Amino acid sequence: MRATRLFAINDIRTVDVPVPVPAAGEVLVQVEACGICGTDRHLLHGEFPSKPPLTLGHEFSGIVVGRGAGVSIPEGTRVTCDPNTWCGTCENCLRGRVNLCLNNVATGIHRDGGFAEFCAYPAHKAHPLPADLDPLHGAFCEPLACTIHGVDMGAPKAGERALILGGGVIGMLALQLCVAAGSEVMLLTRSPAKQALGRSLGAAITAATEEEARALWPKGADLVIECAGVTDTVECAPRLTRSGGRVVILGVLPAGQTVRIEPFDLLFREVQLLSSFINPFTQDRAARMIATGAIRIDPVISRILPLEEAAAAIIAPAPPGEIRAIVRP
Amino acid sequence: MRATRLFAINDIRTVDVPVPVPAAGEVLVQVEACGICGTDRHLLHGEFPSKPPLTLGHEFSGIVVGRGAGVSIPEGTRVTCDPNTWCGTCENCLRGRVNLCLNNVATGIHRDGGFAEFCAYPAHKAHPLPADLDPLHGAFCEPLACTIHGVDMGAPKAGERALILGGGVIGMLALQLCVAAGSEVMLLTRSPAKQALGRSLGAAITAATEEEARALWPKGADLVIECAGVTDTVECAPRLTRSGGRVVILGVLPAGQTVRIEPFDLLFREVQLLSSFINPFTQDRAARMIATGAIRIDPVISRILPLEEAAAAIIAPAPPGEIRAIVRP
Amino acid sequence: MRATRLFAINDIRTVDVPVPVPAAGEVLVQVEACGICGTDRHLLHGEFPSKPPLTLGHEFSGIVVGRGAGVSIPEGTRVTCDPNTWCGTCENCLRGRVNLCLNNVATGIHRDGGFAEFCAYPAHKAHPLPADLDPLHGAFCEPLACTIHGVDMGAPKAGERALILGGGVIGMLALQLCVAAGSEVMLLTRSPAKQALGRSLGAAITAATEEEARALWPKGADLVIECAGVTDTVECAPRLTRSGGRVVILGVLPAGQTVRIEPFDLLFREVQLLSSFINPFTQDRAARMIATGAIRIDPVISRILPLEEAAAAIIAPAPPGEIRAIVRP
Amino acid sequence: MRATRLFAINDIRTVDVPVPVPAAGEVLVQVEACGICGTDRHLLHGEFPSKPPLTLGHEFSGIVVGRGAGVSIPEGTRVTCDPNTWCGTCENCLRGRVNLCLNNVATGIHRDGGFAEFCAYPAHKAHPLPADLDPLHGAFCEPLACTIHGVDMGAPKAGERALILGGGVIGMLALQLCVAAGSEVMLLTRSPAKQALGRSLGAAITAATEEEARALWPKGADLVIECAGVTDTVECAPRLTRSGGRVVILGVLPAGQTVRIEPFDLLFREVQLLSSFINPFTQDRAARMIATGAIRIDPVISRILPLEEAAAAIIAPAPPGEIRAIVRP
Ligand SMILES: NC(=O)c1ccc[n+]([C@@H]2O[C@H](COP(=O)([O-])OP(=O)(O)OC[C@H]3O[C@@H](n4cnc5c(N)ncnc54)[C@H](OP(=O)(O)O)[C@@H]3O)[C@@H](O)[C@H]2O)c1
Ligand SMILES: NC(=O)c1ccc[n+]([C@@H]2O[C@H](COP(=O)([O-])OP(=O)(O)OC[C@H]3O[C@@H](n4cnc5c(N)ncnc54)[C@H](OP(=O)(O)O)[C@@H]3O)[C@@H](O)[C@H]2O)c1
Ligand SMILES: NC(=O)c1ccc[n+]([C@@H]2O[C@H](COP(=O)([O-])OP(=O)(O)OC[C@H]3O[C@@H](n4cnc5c(N)ncnc54)[C@H](OP(=O)(O)O)[C@@H]3O)[C@@H](O)[C@H]2O)c1
Ligand SMILES: NC(=O)c1ccc[n+]([C@@H]2O[C@H](COP(=O)([O-])OP(=O)(O)OC[C@H]3O[C@@H](n4cnc5c(N)ncnc54)[C@H](OP(=O)(O)O)[C@@H]3O)[C@@H](O)[C@H]2O)c1
Ligand SMILES: [Zn+2]
Ligand SMILES: [Zn+2]
Ligand SMILES: [Zn+2]
Ligand SMILES: [Zn+2]
Repeated sequence: MRATRLFAINDIRTVDVPVPVPAAGEVLVQVEACGICGTDRHLLHGEFPSKPPLTLGHEFSGIVVGRGAGVSIPEGTRVTCDPNTWCGTCENCLRGRVNLCLNNVATGIHRDGGFAEFCAYPAHKAHPLPADLDPLHGAFCEPLACTIHGVDMGAPKAGERALILGGGVIGMLALQLCVAAGSEVMLLTRSPAKQALGRSLGAAITAATEEEARALWPKGADLVIECAGVTDTVECAPRLTRSGGRVVILGVLPAGQTVRIEPFDLLFREVQLLSSFINPFTQDRAARMIATGAIRIDPVISRILPLEEAAAAIIAPAPPGEIRAIVRP
Repeated sequence: MRATRLFAINDIRTVDVPVPVPAAGEVLVQVEACGICGTDRHLLHGEFPSKPPLTLGHEFSGIVVGRGAGVSIPEGTRVTCDPNTWCGTCENCLRGRVNLCLNNVATGIHRDGGFAEFCAYPAHKAHPLPADLDPLHGAFCEPLACTIHGVDMGAPKAGERALILGGGVIGMLALQLCVAAGSEVMLLTRSPAKQALGRSLGAAITAATEEEARALWPKGADLVIECAGVTDTVECAPRLTRSGGRVVILGVLPAGQTVRIEPFDLLFREVQLLSSFINPFTQDRAARMIATGAIRIDPVISRILPLEEAAAAIIAPAPPGEIRAIVRP
Repeated sequence: MRATRLFAINDIRTVDVPVPVPAAGEVLVQVEACGICGTDRHLLHGEFPSKPPLTLGHEFSGIVVGRGAGVSIPEGTRVTCDPNTWCGTCENCLRGRVNLCLNNVATGIHRDGGFAEFCAYPAHKAHPLPADLDPLHGAFCEPLACTIHGVDMGAPKAGERALILGGGVIGMLALQLCVAAGSEVMLLTRSPAKQALGRSLGAAITAATEEEARALWPKGADLVIECAGVTDTVECAPRLTRSGGRVVILGVLPAGQTVRIEPFDLLFREVQLLSSFINPFTQDRAARMIATGAIRIDPVISRILPLEEAAAAIIAPAPPGEIRAIVRP
Repeated sequence: MRATRLFAINDIRTVDVPVPVPAAGEVLVQVEACGICGTDRHLLHGEFPSKPPLTLGHEFSGIVVGRGAGVSIPEGTRVTCDPNTWCGTCENCLRGRVNLCLNNVATGIHRDGGFAEFCAYPAHKAHPLPADLDPLHGAFCEPLACTIHGVDMGAPKAGERALILGGGVIGMLALQLCVAAGSEVMLLTRSPAKQALGRSLGAAITAATEEEARALWPKGADLVIECAGVTDTVECAPRLTRSGGRVVILGVLPAGQTVRIEPFDLLFREVQLLSSFINPFTQDRAARMIATGAIRIDPVISRILPLEEAAAAIIAPAPPGEIRAIVRP
């Protein structure tokens, strides 16, 4: 089969490899769709550690076509992959904090992933999807599951105001989750096209800069969700938060990079600064919300590529305005 | 009567003033004890805003000796003052966030306080104390109420580890609250005398520096409570927190001063950064814990002064090793 | 002025009384609308205690036309009344549980209320409403505030299932709040007309009996909100709850009446049984949700009556299918 | 080896069976101590379902003496068994509610357990204990883990009052956990010997009846933990709870048995009725609290038996005053 593999830092290519054989407890999935995520580019450039050679791709779904010993999920089932496979026995797993597992093995990061015709991974990480779902939508369960975890933490309420910083896929999903929770939502993103998309997905209002956002909501938002992952937005998040409100950081800055916060302002206004990491126990809710259509996926698919173009698309930066590119092997 | 009054920035003196007359809904209290707090020094130096002339002193207790119309609390009752008198009608009060009241009137900050023989203030802010309580102990209800709010937010559990940064009165109260909640407590403070005091109050272990603390608890603490209010301790708090843990900031840095945090570290270890401001709905629990002796007060009283020495004690910085100086008018 | 007053158990009449004079801290309001609530009938029949003579009516709004000393809210403002005036100083108020105030004084229950041309009550219990709001809508802030408290307690999440038991005004408001929070909602009520109304307000599905509800959702609902206040619905609420789910009881059964629950079933499925009492810190959110139109009010107004018909309407049981009758003095 | 096996309802005997061979992923443990729990008697009498023949015993610890493929825990390690082995893939596991697993396999209930010289079970359910721990103490990790879950749910606070109903092993552990959390604790149990034991473990006060408890604490307890599992104590639990307080039910009544509650009383005092089932993510904390001596175990061991006496001890009802009998194979 064909697979897009990282061979070394800055060396990614699509090559022939044998179809994997599912071990005991594993499924073999024929991949239908796999999203290109910023993390794939970080792995390529060595900004996140990895052990090449490795097939990338951790946001994917497909059809079960083979099963190792002891697997009960029927062949032919459409499934989405939860890439994070926690150990269950480290000190964090044992207290239920499985997203902080010290031995996490992520499909597409620590073992071969979804930029391939076929992928084998643990069957308990394969979440069923409806047979009639658009095959491309299943690739969004993982980013949605991460976003649900962050939004749960922020706990938006009906009648509150929520401000989303950043108009990528995480921002667009957070926006939809806050709208679904009854909040009045503002999207802050620099691109006019993303602003328009945000409004079409339910944002009441949009802004391009901190100043614009402050002018629109002078008292700030009850909940600010940072989905850009850059210094500017992390630093302005508390400032755009209402007295007594919450900030949730979903965006990832590079390790070692610091930002400046003003403790006096946080304390006198009792603004809480929360961080949300990946998807503990939320993948299944994500799969259901996508299956029921509660979260709209079509508008956040910017491009569909064949597998042969995956390597080039990962090497190039995302084109301006792109939300998510999906590889269809 | 005599009262220690702020007349202008850097001008504080003890002078003769008329005994106040309690208005409708107010009590007149003969002050038995009033603590000198860092805030008094900030007000003196103009680092916090105030409208002199004003009698300072917001941590005090005494005996009810007079009552305005409509007050039912009997004369002769020992009471402690909750200085923070929220309006009940601003947008924050209306949603129960009374410590964020936009119109808070604090006795000893916005109206005449407790460095005086007598003080009049709203009767519903006078919390009864037992007749046989040590009169000096009532002055600690306010700082304890603030600390209870922060510790509630951090939610220490039996069997967890809690690290207290700073060995002033707030640190010593936070330490005792975490011990009472069943946590194993470390106190980090530079002074050997304060370390020894911390151990006598229940700390399992003490440290003088971030490095020492890390060597003792390499995985960090489930809960870190910052009670020093300086850049160094705020910056090291998340680094000394265990994966999945919580930081509560109680210490106050100057407005405008910023600190550096590393978002990547907070996010990948899901460390939450919480800030706690004054004492919403906790004054009564504080009064009860002091009344029952659950929190030990004697060891945190460093000095007892007459009113005539209050001004000089506020003008001078706190002597090294001092936890709390109490003025007995 | 005219006022509908309770003179003794089962003796309610509309009579002439002087216009009240607002005391210090009170507003005088010209009543625009006052809802007839089951509580009014309980007071008439002596099922709830009261001290007649008394003007009933605790769900009302109107225009400020007079002010006692110290009131800043401008004349001409449209306001809704939060009838519950907690003392601020009892042991429950002091720990922030103001809805459990031991000395609560409720306008329309313990002091003259809104079935009158004018009503005087504490100004801090008058919540501003927009000048252009439909005058009848303001009368729904109190029941909505109670319902918000219960729904907050139940914490519906986007993507969950919520089941509302009872199609009165509380049920219809709970239904809308759960829809606004992103839940899939079922309404169980025996009346086909109320079922139809429920669907038009956003219920995905309706049922008339426990059996029907179970057939539709065999695994139960994540959240069941009891809004009928009868033995049957309280007893079936846990049985219709999903494993791991929450029941919130809003309905009021008579004092002393008991119901049967099965502890084994609650325990093995870890179903939590929560009760929600009146409106702590939620009146303002209610006023805002009504002002913005987030909650639809017109469909739950069944009848509009003049004040002269109020007594008869309270004496008679609510006609079948009635949601809320509003008195317009 | 010898093993105490259930052959049919009311037929339990100690017999010779082969030493089990650990499968892949399993440990073989030489049992040092196994507690006799009420559940064992329920299984014997057919009150809980089971599929004999089966070796009973789900509260045990011992030394690792053999390992299946892929197990890393060293031979010689002292371990305690978490009997509940959730599937990880059912709808409840997927949302993190692992104690509600639809496919739970409990060692000693659904597969051979600890009343035997050796027991094989999944290695990830073996929690390390210190080498120098008293071998008998490890058998208490499972009941303590269940109790921790219930106490977490009740969230006792320093300075609050907690009332424990029932003086068995669960009651004595709940008592110690609430004392460790800083609460003032009352133990209600009919036996004077158990009352005395409760006081020696930190209870401030004891009572034998509801009336006595009410006389001692007329306003009730902030937290009531039901650990008796009988109708009387479940029914009186809300009545002994303070306004605004919480009830946690840990005791198990037979399936189908109902109790009477008074919804009016729960609602007007906003008393919450919570139920706690087994030990999700708490076994490790339990093991640590026992290892550090934070929870005292010796006083709750009433008898130590050889394996040959286990069957008779299970057949007989627990002798009056017995807290826990431990079988040492
Ligand atoms: N916590 C987790 O579990 C988790 C999971 C998945 C992803 N992430 C992180 O979440 C972040 C978002 O992911 P994504 O896939 O949505 O990334 P993305 O497509 O790169 O989106 C980032 C968005 O941020 C906006 N942005 C960049 N600089 C900005 C600035 N100075 N001001 C305002 N907006 C700015 C960009 O919009 P404009 O250019 O239009 O302004 C862009 O749309 C990333 O950091 C990613 O690593 C975290
Ligand atoms: N959030 C609230 O509601 C609230 C209420 C009251 C007070 N506060 C604030 O809480 C803080 C503590 O109050 P306090 O009355 O206890 O003050 P304090 O007596 O001045 O105590 C501060 C302690 O911090 C320690 N410290 C200073 N610099 C340090 C450093 N670089 N590293 C380690 N420790 C350091 C000092 O101990 P060593 O010199 O021995 O190290 C000192 O004991 C203040 O900022 C105060 O404004 C907040
Ligand atoms: N907790 C609080 O703070 C609070 C505040 C306000 C009100 N309440 C209470 O909330 C409850 C509802 O108030 P409301 O004003 O909405 O009352 P309501 O108009 O009388 O509505 C009650 C509804 O319950 C339904 N019902 C009655 N018996 C039923 C049964 N056996 N099965 C199913 N449904 C049944 C009725 O619908 P059908 O006849 O069509 O079935 C009716 O629509 C009352 O008990 C009230 O006292 C509580
Ligand atoms: N939820 C869970 O996960 C979980 C886990 C383990 C156990 N449990 C359950 O928890 C309960 C306690 O377990 P255990 O092992 O401690 O049982 P136990 O040893 O039988 O203790 C029960 C205690 O209840 C007391 N009791 C019985 N009837 C009473 C009454 N009418 N009034 C007051 N006290 C009464 C008895 O004390 P006196 O006779 O001295 O009054 C006895 O000490 C059982 O129901 C058990 O099934 C639940
Ligand atoms: Zn792990
Ligand atoms: Zn206010
Ligand atoms: Zn009160
Ligand atoms: Zn399961």
